[in-house]
Amino acid sequence: MSSIFTKIVRGEIPSYKIAENDDYFAFLDINPNSKGHTLCIPKKEIDKILDLDRETYLGLMDFSRKVGKAIEAAVDCQRVGITVIGLEVPHVHVHLIPLTSMADATFQRKVSMEPAEFEAVAEAIRAKLE
Amino acid sequence: MSSIFTKIVRGEIPSYKIAENDDYFAFLDINPNSKGHTLCIPKKEIDKILDLDRETYLGLMDFSRKVGKAIEAAVDCQRVGITVIGLEVPHVHVHLIPLTSMADATFQRKVSMEPAEFEAVAEAIRAKLE
Repeated sequence: MSSIFTKIVRGEIPSYKIAENDDYFAFLDINPNSKGHTLCIPKKEIDKILDLDRETYLGLMDFSRKVGKAIEAAVDCQRVGITVIGLEVPHVHVHLIPLTSMADATFQRKVSMEPAEFEAVAEAIRAKLE
Repeated sequence: MSSIFTKIVRGEIPSYKIAENDDYFAFLDINPNSKGHTLCIPKKEIDKILDLDRETYLGLMDFSRKVGKAIEAAVDCQRVGITVIGLEVPHVHVHLIPLTSMADATFQRKVSMEPAEFEAVAEAIRAKLE
């Protein structure tokens, strides 16, 4: 069965899309640690990041860098953190999280956002993508 | 003033070294989330990861991948997580954390280890480096 993220890539599940190319896809985390929290994934459905072949891994990190710089430019924060955990969804995903405190990085405090806020922050990040 | 990590690279502060090349250095986190928790840093002293030039950033992620695969081979865990936060030490560092539960990724639960245990896990990881 396809992962929830593959269904998002295919448009079978809606998402607030940030960026896409042939191999990678970025969209807002629907249960964000902070406003602007984004996930970057390879379209290839692999469970663990260290099991990606080197080229796909480096491509994902390069894609995440571009998206991260756009988030840093669009969202009020001290910096953008990068986290890969992956114990819940078995499809590699890089968390890009606008940080203002350590609590934003712990995945234990979540922020509640309305659809209009998701739309607005997605649009702001997209506008900063080069 | 040099960062604590630059002092580690120079050997002015001791560390349990895992790997080193011209541009990058890896050593055990002295206050680990879990046994085998390792930091990978660029020797270049830059505060934020997204401020690294693209080549240095991709080199760091490639170096971290090699070290991470060695950790995954040497340490009993479900997978190795990757985290960059950086709110405390202003010198880019990639956390590679052996994960068996979400708690290992939160930086709120630390494990206590004796020097001999640090030495043993460092040696086990180094032995798995290609």
